[in-house]
Amino acid sequence: MSLSPKTVSELATLVGGRVHGDGDIVINSVASLDAAGEGDITYVEEEKLLAAAANSKASCVITRLGVDVKVPCRIEVKNPKLAFALIAEVLHPRKQRQPEIHHTAVLSPASKIGNDVFIGAFVCLGEHSSVGDRTQIRAGAKIGDNVTVGSDCVIHPNVFLEDGVTIGNGVILHAGVVIGADGFGYVRGEMGYHKFPQIGTVIIEDDVELGANTCVDRAALGRTRIGRGTKIDNMVHVGHNCDIGERVVIAAQTGISGSVVIEDDCVIGGQVGFGDHIRVLSGAIIGSKAGILPGKIVRPGIWWGIPIQPLDEYKRLNAHISRLPYVRQELKELTERVRILEDQLSTSDE
Amino acid sequence: MSLSPKTVSELATLVGGRVHGDGDIVINSVASLDAAGEGDITYVEEEKLLAAAANSKASCVITRLGVDVKVPCRIEVKNPKLAFALIAEVLHPRKQRQPEIHHTAVLSPASKIGNDVFIGAFVCLGEHSSVGDRTQIRAGAKIGDNVTVGSDCVIHPNVFLEDGVTIGNGVILHAGVVIGADGFGYVRGEMGYHKFPQIGTVIIEDDVELGANTCVDRAALGRTRIGRGTKIDNMVHVGHNCDIGERVVIAAQTGISGSVVIEDDCVIGGQVGFGDHIRVLSGAIIGSKAGILPGKIVRPGIWWGIPIQPLDEYKRLNAHISRLPYVRQELKELTERVRILEDQLSTSDE
Amino acid sequence: MSLSPKTVSELATLVGGRVHGDGDIVINSVASLDAAGEGDITYVEEEKLLAAAANSKASCVITRLGVDVKVPCRIEVKNPKLAFALIAEVLHPRKQRQPEIHHTAVLSPASKIGNDVFIGAFVCLGEHSSVGDRTQIRAGAKIGDNVTVGSDCVIHPNVFLEDGVTIGNGVILHAGVVIGADGFGYVRGEMGYHKFPQIGTVIIEDDVELGANTCVDRAALGRTRIGRGTKIDNMVHVGHNCDIGERVVIAAQTGISGSVVIEDDCVIGGQVGFGDHIRVLSGAIIGSKAGILPGKIVRPGIWWGIPIQPLDEYKRLNAHISRLPYVRQELKELTERVRILEDQLSTSDE
Repeated sequence: MSLSPKTVSELATLVGGRVHGDGDIVINSVASLDAAGEGDITYVEEEKLLAAAANSKASCVITRLGVDVKVPCRIEVKNPKLAFALIAEVLHPRKQRQPEIHHTAVLSPASKIGNDVFIGAFVCLGEHSSVGDRTQIRAGAKIGDNVTVGSDCVIHPNVFLEDGVTIGNGVILHAGVVIGADGFGYVRGEMGYHKFPQIGTVIIEDDVELGANTCVDRAALGRTRIGRGTKIDNMVHVGHNCDIGERVVIAAQTGISGSVVIEDDCVIGGQVGFGDHIRVLSGAIIGSKAGILPGKIVRPGIWWGIPIQPLDEYKRLNAHISRLPYVRQELKELTERVRILEDQLSTSDE
Repeated sequence: MSLSPKTVSELATLVGGRVHGDGDIVINSVASLDAAGEGDITYVEEEKLLAAAANSKASCVITRLGVDVKVPCRIEVKNPKLAFALIAEVLHPRKQRQPEIHHTAVLSPASKIGNDVFIGAFVCLGEHSSVGDRTQIRAGAKIGDNVTVGSDCVIHPNVFLEDGVTIGNGVILHAGVVIGADGFGYVRGEMGYHKFPQIGTVIIEDDVELGANTCVDRAALGRTRIGRGTKIDNMVHVGHNCDIGERVVIAAQTGISGSVVIEDDCVIGGQVGFGDHIRVLSGAIIGSKAGILPGKIVRPGIWWGIPIQPLDEYKRLNAHISRLPYVRQELKELTERVRILEDQLSTSDE
Repeated sequence: MSLSPKTVSELATLVGGRVHGDGDIVINSVASLDAAGEGDITYVEEEKLLAAAANSKASCVITRLGVDVKVPCRIEVKNPKLAFALIAEVLHPRKQRQPEIHHTAVLSPASKIGNDVFIGAFVCLGEHSSVGDRTQIRAGAKIGDNVTVGSDCVIHPNVFLEDGVTIGNGVILHAGVVIGADGFGYVRGEMGYHKFPQIGTVIIEDDVELGANTCVDRAALGRTRIGRGTKIDNMVHVGHNCDIGERVVIAAQTGISGSVVIEDDCVIGGQVGFGDHIRVLSGAIIGSKAGILPGKIVRPGIWWGIPIQPLDEYKRLNAHISRLPYVRQELKELTERVRILEDQLSTSDE
């Protein structure tokens, strides 16, 4: 349950919506359409759910402009799901931890801590590293030397930030994230492999969120970058020297080889594999499990398959493939018809 | 070597088997067929390994009912591999750690610890969290607030359990597991992405085992569930609001998007990718590397490929594809035969 | 910037190269061709980059034998990239940590620590475990009982080494690596799954490097092995009883099921999936995202696809698949020509 209840009118003002019903009703919590009860607000977008919405026990329903749903109280907005998300941010604010530096934390005297910072148990913070105001660094996170963490970040337990990494403001790093481990680059000599230098850095810009156990490698030379507002799911691998733009979305377990550029506003599915030196142009959408060959330029549009093709072509080819048994059958029948013709002609020739 | 040796007769009784040979022989340890020596017990199932079994140096061999193997001592059972596993549980019991709360652990005074619990170094346990009897929480595990961990669990090093998560009895969580991180859900606004509320929880039922670095996200609203007796391998991603049934087996690196339902007794290979809102019906088997489109209902049977098809169809289509060069060749030859026919007819017409 | 600058002549001697220009110039740092400035050394291999090399601001350029580039100072060698890597090792030596055992570390009195060892904060080291000379065990790493870690290793933060594991000399384990968790093996009984014994061990040989969050499971019986000089990227899964040879390279997110053998000098791409009991013969190269069926023997050569095929065949089949629409069109046209022939013949018969 929320710690900061609001009235329907207050919530409507927040999202620029219009109240139909009693604006003084107090809302405690967001809830799904079927689970919502008294004190809850929910939302409905899809036509087929309107009947369910009418039967909902929610105290208030957020609906799309111009949609008529018979409920005692609703807020009409342009984008109900967005309004629901914004309202949830207010009703269920991120857990605030009282500013504290846990007595077990090991902080270098040469580090710099901002105001109202929370540093949990067993945290390490290295030399010449800094943490911005109101940032929370939770238990067991390890931060190396010369690391900059901005303000209003949440660094979850057991995250590791290697030396020299830069984290912007408002960044969320989920548990087990590793940023700045060596990139994967070797040169074969006579006796085996020598490490190609991995002495660059990583820059994570403002408002980025990285899922649990995701890894972002440091650049060989130069930097690996994750742009502002980009959201990355669990167990994604970002290789050395990648440059991921702003507001990019990448689903779980995708792997991005070295020196890949993904421009702003791309959407990448889960378990996608990128060869190195690919450039994905702004606005491209790549479906889950796709595979992209090294060096490829991916233009805007929807892409699918291994190797990737435009979704339309992928579908067309897939349809052709599933028709293969018929092709073979048709070919067999046609061969028989030709054999008959040949027989007829050879007979008529005689 | 085992700390709890047993005689062949005792082991036979344990697994309901029949001894052929000297039941008083003492067995210390399980071993593979080729590595077994004196004091070891091994098993044989496959016909082709019977000769190797006859030459084994094991003190005892577990064999299938009615199979005649010339060894000095054997135990005959219906299911040798299962008997071997059950015997191993007795000869090699899980490492017992003396009950202890390590002096470095940071436990909230408002937490509740059962009897005979082991809590290792650098563990954190938050407010209003509880740990059941005989559970082992190993070094560096971090447990948030309002978490319930049942009895007889093993929480391996560096596991993280986020606030509000519930863990049943007899659960094993391998190192680096993350349970209850935010699900991956955003709503696009004018300025970028807003987090869809991720305020639900996770329930892990009894006797579940999760592999190293596996992540199970909390529900957006409601709960994510892993059912009783389900076994999940390393680095599997389970998205928000998934409902995984009982006795499900999921191999390594599989990724499960949000709101997927996998019913009881399914078997899922490695590196499988699930789109969201899929329902896998009880008894379905999905081959490794398969890909399943969002919203699909997967019926019982064996499934394969991207997108998944019944295994038989997959094999048939694959055979058609590998015959493609011949199809093309046949088509070319047939075209030539038709050309000749056309020539003949045009000549005979003249 | 480097802490150990060298002259061009010293560096040329190190890599067996020949100086063209002023050998007394002092070099501080390696850098990429475009970013290099004064005091930097860079390299050029590709023909198409020679013009860029001529314009580089680097103080020295490493070039291939016999290639003529107009720069004030260069070192000519057989393998510029390898020379660059070797020079980087000298200019940017691995971070040395002053020998120290952090006062927060929890070491069993029955453990054995070599000379000049660094042990960071919140490290655990169990009973009868040993750490070789000059090894660095960074903050939060957890090492169980009866573990052997060789000399000159770097164990990065939050790594976990389970009981009984052996780590050679010169091994680098990146953050979040888990070695020796139970393999994934169960036997189905009437009530559900029983764990197949996972009581073997893991051996990591000299000069191995494992990427962040990679997991290597212990053997069921016997041992899992990673051979000398093998390099493995982030989030790779190595199942129980695998035997990976020497100088093998495995890219990120590849998954290797139980009992797979990969012989020396193989190269495996990212996101590859191996069924169990596969044997990859020395010198095989397997492309990213490939899938290999259980029990398969993979011969030397380049392999691709799901299931894997020789690259040539894969390309040929892919070409056939993309021509499918034309095949269908040709078949349609040919059918029409046959119909016309049939009409003609039936007419001429009349």
